[in-house]
Amino acid sequence: MSLTEIQRLQTLLPTWVETNRLLCANGKVASYIPELAKSPIDALGIHLINAQGNSVSAGNSELTFTMQSISKVFTLILALMDNGESGVFDKVGMEPTGDNFNSMLKLELVQPGIPFNPLINAGAIAISSLIAGESPTEKSRRVLEFFRLLSNNRSLDYDLDVYRSESDTANLNRSMAYFLKDNGVLEGAVEDVLDVYFRHCSICVTCTDLAQMALVLAHNGTNPITGEELIPRRYVQIAKTFMTTCGMYNASGEFAIQVGLPAKSGVSGGILTLVPGRYGIGLVGPSLNRKGNSIAGVALLEQMSQTFDWSLF
Amino acid sequence: MSLTEIQRLQTLLPTWVETNRLLCANGKVASYIPELAKSPIDALGIHLINAQGNSVSAGNSELTFTMQSISKVFTLILALMDNGESGVFDKVGMEPTGDNFNSMLKLELVQPGIPFNPLINAGAIAISSLIAGESPTEKSRRVLEFFRLLSNNRSLDYDLDVYRSESDTANLNRSMAYFLKDNGVLEGAVEDVLDVYFRHCSICVTCTDLAQMALVLAHNGTNPITGEELIPRRYVQIAKTFMTTCGMYNASGEFAIQVGLPAKSGVSGGILTLVPGRYGIGLVGPSLNRKGNSIAGVALLEQMSQTFDWSLF
Amino acid sequence: MSLTEIQRLQTLLPTWVETNRLLCANGKVASYIPELAKSPIDALGIHLINAQGNSVSAGNSELTFTMQSISKVFTLILALMDNGESGVFDKVGMEPTGDNFNSMLKLELVQPGIPFNPLINAGAIAISSLIAGESPTEKSRRVLEFFRLLSNNRSLDYDLDVYRSESDTANLNRSMAYFLKDNGVLEGAVEDVLDVYFRHCSICVTCTDLAQMALVLAHNGTNPITGEELIPRRYVQIAKTFMTTCGMYNASGEFAIQVGLPAKSGVSGGILTLVPGRYGIGLVGPSLNRKGNSIAGVALLEQMSQTFDWSLF
Amino acid sequence: MSLTEIQRLQTLLPTWVETNRLLCANGKVASYIPELAKSPIDALGIHLINAQGNSVSAGNSELTFTMQSISKVFTLILALMDNGESGVFDKVGMEPTGDNFNSMLKLELVQPGIPFNPLINAGAIAISSLIAGESPTEKSRRVLEFFRLLSNNRSLDYDLDVYRSESDTANLNRSMAYFLKDNGVLEGAVEDVLDVYFRHCSICVTCTDLAQMALVLAHNGTNPITGEELIPRRYVQIAKTFMTTCGMYNASGEFAIQVGLPAKSGVSGGILTLVPGRYGIGLVGPSLNRKGNSIAGVALLEQMSQTFDWSLF
Repeated sequence: MSLTEIQRLQTLLPTWVETNRLLCANGKVASYIPELAKSPIDALGIHLINAQGNSVSAGNSELTFTMQSISKVFTLILALMDNGESGVFDKVGMEPTGDNFNSMLKLELVQPGIPFNPLINAGAIAISSLIAGESPTEKSRRVLEFFRLLSNNRSLDYDLDVYRSESDTANLNRSMAYFLKDNGVLEGAVEDVLDVYFRHCSICVTCTDLAQMALVLAHNGTNPITGEELIPRRYVQIAKTFMTTCGMYNASGEFAIQVGLPAKSGVSGGILTLVPGRYGIGLVGPSLNRKGNSIAGVALLEQMSQTFDWSLF
Repeated sequence: MSLTEIQRLQTLLPTWVETNRLLCANGKVASYIPELAKSPIDALGIHLINAQGNSVSAGNSELTFTMQSISKVFTLILALMDNGESGVFDKVGMEPTGDNFNSMLKLELVQPGIPFNPLINAGAIAISSLIAGESPTEKSRRVLEFFRLLSNNRSLDYDLDVYRSESDTANLNRSMAYFLKDNGVLEGAVEDVLDVYFRHCSICVTCTDLAQMALVLAHNGTNPITGEELIPRRYVQIAKTFMTTCGMYNASGEFAIQVGLPAKSGVSGGILTLVPGRYGIGLVGPSLNRKGNSIAGVALLEQMSQTFDWSLF
Repeated sequence: MSLTEIQRLQTLLPTWVETNRLLCANGKVASYIPELAKSPIDALGIHLINAQGNSVSAGNSELTFTMQSISKVFTLILALMDNGESGVFDKVGMEPTGDNFNSMLKLELVQPGIPFNPLINAGAIAISSLIAGESPTEKSRRVLEFFRLLSNNRSLDYDLDVYRSESDTANLNRSMAYFLKDNGVLEGAVEDVLDVYFRHCSICVTCTDLAQMALVLAHNGTNPITGEELIPRRYVQIAKTFMTTCGMYNASGEFAIQVGLPAKSGVSGGILTLVPGRYGIGLVGPSLNRKGNSIAGVALLEQMSQTFDWSLF
Repeated sequence: MSLTEIQRLQTLLPTWVETNRLLCANGKVASYIPELAKSPIDALGIHLINAQGNSVSAGNSELTFTMQSISKVFTLILALMDNGESGVFDKVGMEPTGDNFNSMLKLELVQPGIPFNPLINAGAIAISSLIAGESPTEKSRRVLEFFRLLSNNRSLDYDLDVYRSESDTANLNRSMAYFLKDNGVLEGAVEDVLDVYFRHCSICVTCTDLAQMALVLAHNGTNPITGEELIPRRYVQIAKTFMTTCGMYNASGEFAIQVGLPAKSGVSGGILTLVPGRYGIGLVGPSLNRKGNSIAGVALLEQMSQTFDWSLF
């Protein structure tokens, strides 16, 4: 039956991509990182893979883009592997915020002033400071290696133009990082922490890479194709829970209602999602809706999840 | 295997209830409704039932208590059955707030000033105004009938002392309701809406009643014992999603990480939760933690979910 | 010289009123109280009186209008006379808020949850509950008598249409009052307190009445024409200080910079202001700017204060 | 009479200083700049000077301390002299905030995200970026020269230990500056602006220096002893208005009620205040109350103002 579903997807996805692509005109490409403003506004691509390695691609699935916030799922996992649960949850909470991903309100208003969760910017910056390594370079190297391992792509690397563009203009992330430093949340020099953060946000991927990474999550930390155990199951569980409650910015609640799958989006238009026990899915559509998620990508996932009854709920 | 698990639960729950009961000393009974302050601080009881009607009880499972916020799950469902999805989601959003359940901040700060979700107080008051009925009395009657149907308990009724106690002292809920009225969210007279709200919060139940209601959700709207279809499946899905993202006040994220089941708590110390496709669970423990959830009840559910690997994620 | 200034004002004001009247087109008449929406948008009138009883009128100085927030200055004074400083400042603070006059944010965010000052709505409602009197009727009667005394106008009375219009639609003030009740700020029944509040807001005046009341403040509590001591000097000082720091809603800081006189505005377009030791001034111009002050009235006062160097600073 | 008042002050101040000094035990020395934590907690000193150059000193009036926020009054004036009113008020507002001096809430919540006034930290940082000069060094030199001129003290200079201590630990000010940069409020590199800001905060003074600077404000910009015109009168008026509405952090409203004089405090425990047309006053008392003002200093000024009836109101 799973094969049949893949076959149906092979038939349906090319058409669905084209109809949902029309929504791109109603969104906007992210511009707060100048380099991102160059993304093709009407692109939409998807790649889906199952445990047997069967896959479906449709649309602009070969487009390369930077992971941006999608990387936060995997730095969280690495920080858990480096520090254990208590080491991580001393520095970040477990709650959705209801605020924008770059809001600083709760850091000022809610004691003890730690980020509410690891998937908002403040939380992900705190997580960056928890990656093991003697230097920012070593930390970043470890992150990149981990991402290469999960994506099964040894050539994964930074988009240095995006990295520099973000690093040069990230006044709001700097503001947040200094606030966290003042609240006692960050270890080490603020600029060092930010460098690790900007680097992992700028790792360049395709839909295939995201689908491979998602496939590992869909199989509780094991690459089902190679059989390799890459992540302890409990940390995958934590990651999938956060993806469900906080993965789609402050549209996570709506995404849970309409799609019902663990997912994480980025301002580059990427979305990584998964059907537990079955598929890893990578998607890109740089035209964003008002909440910062791929406008056509979210619609495509709604159509897929509702057609095949994929919701966890 | 499901039978075996029930058997194991029959053996384990009495001990687990006693060890977790010790946590009651670290919490507090709710006092904002004067009548609730009379609840027994060291009570802890649970009832679990499966599709075959097999059940386990432990501790003070016969204690009666008012549903309080637990009722919000079912008024949401009734409002969906009365108005459809679009009729409901015009008036309430789908997002967790990160704020206290009675916070008014986002009503003032975030346009268009509708409640973020139907499970915070503001949202549940908005939902009360959406229940069909010519008069507050008729609306309340319909709610009570619906709850009787779901709990399979024709004698379910109000605790009128709690109803009056809440109605007399609910200045904050009144404040919220008038704010919503000003924002154009409420239909009808504010006091009429509040009467419906206070009444459904004061419906008196036991753990068995909650477990029966939860069992219907666990089986997608059908009572698995009678085979009766009571709720359209889509509305159950919506309810379970909200229970997962917003059901445990602003500790919902942590509950999702540590327990991973759809659940709804009330300030009376009740918790309704479920294992999809399997169990309905009702629990009561009036001693509350800092976030307003049963302190011993949450710990007991963590132990159960982790032992039997029940998390959705 | 003072006489000369009056003579110059007699010459200049009619022209200044006409030039500033043109600004009315850039503002809006208040609509949140339905009855106020009927005010003439292009009206502008002023009355100024000195200690010798010499006066100047220009424009629509005979227009009648309700005091609205202007009344808050005088209920504050009466509450001080009834309760003393400590009796009042237990219930309201002394600080500007930076927020809108009807904001509830600080009541929730800043402990102990008392209104920041007596001139925002929340503070004025708290003040209404402090007026001495056995019943709401008696409290309202005492307020009206006090206002009649200060304005030297025995026929001062309510505009009952505005009173009813506000009472019927004041959901936001009701919301605030219930919030204050919950925070322990209000004595007595919420609706009783609100009735006192709505009544004093709806007292109907002309520019002449306001100028007479202001004249008493300008002379430290004594009516300089009759020589009668009506208010203890310290309470006048307190009132004038609040008028300077908080009298013009969240444009009070700007008004202090540009005009530099104690003043209080109302959403009916009235402004009461004074030149200490010299003039009482009443003004009306129902077209409001974005901050809720008479758009032409503020401009006229800037021109007057800057021409005659009236700023306190 | 003014001479008589000076004579009375000469008699009374030594005793008043000693009785108010007892309050120091109820406050705390600022510790957020590590170097400030070394200040003597029970020190209290005052210097008052009139237009004839007659002066009174009492207590620890020779203590040296850094200006901290007191400097903001004079950088505001210099920025006005460099840019005119519109050049300054494009970048900072005119309103009290009701929030802590280092709060960032309103920068995020209130459009257009410019600081509410020039005396909170965010506003003063914006003002630092408006000081004319080709380089941070040149800007800082111009500020120091201006302060030397106003204080009539050619040897005024930085306390470099405090400067470095603040510069090294000012994570919250850095956070604020990057936020302002993101909001488009700051010209130039953030660290350059902050350097100008940290330097003027660390200018080292005695009560005599503050009294001299205040004397110039008390006489509308002219040094009444030398007759030199140092500041245009309008800019003094603006400065005095801000000192009245926002000069004592979020206790400015209370200070206006209880003292009624334009004043500016700093976390070093300094207060600069003035009696218009008469005295310049400098004061220091490093033990701070909960709002960040000298606990004994505020009490001493209340006693002085109430005894001699100095309130503007």
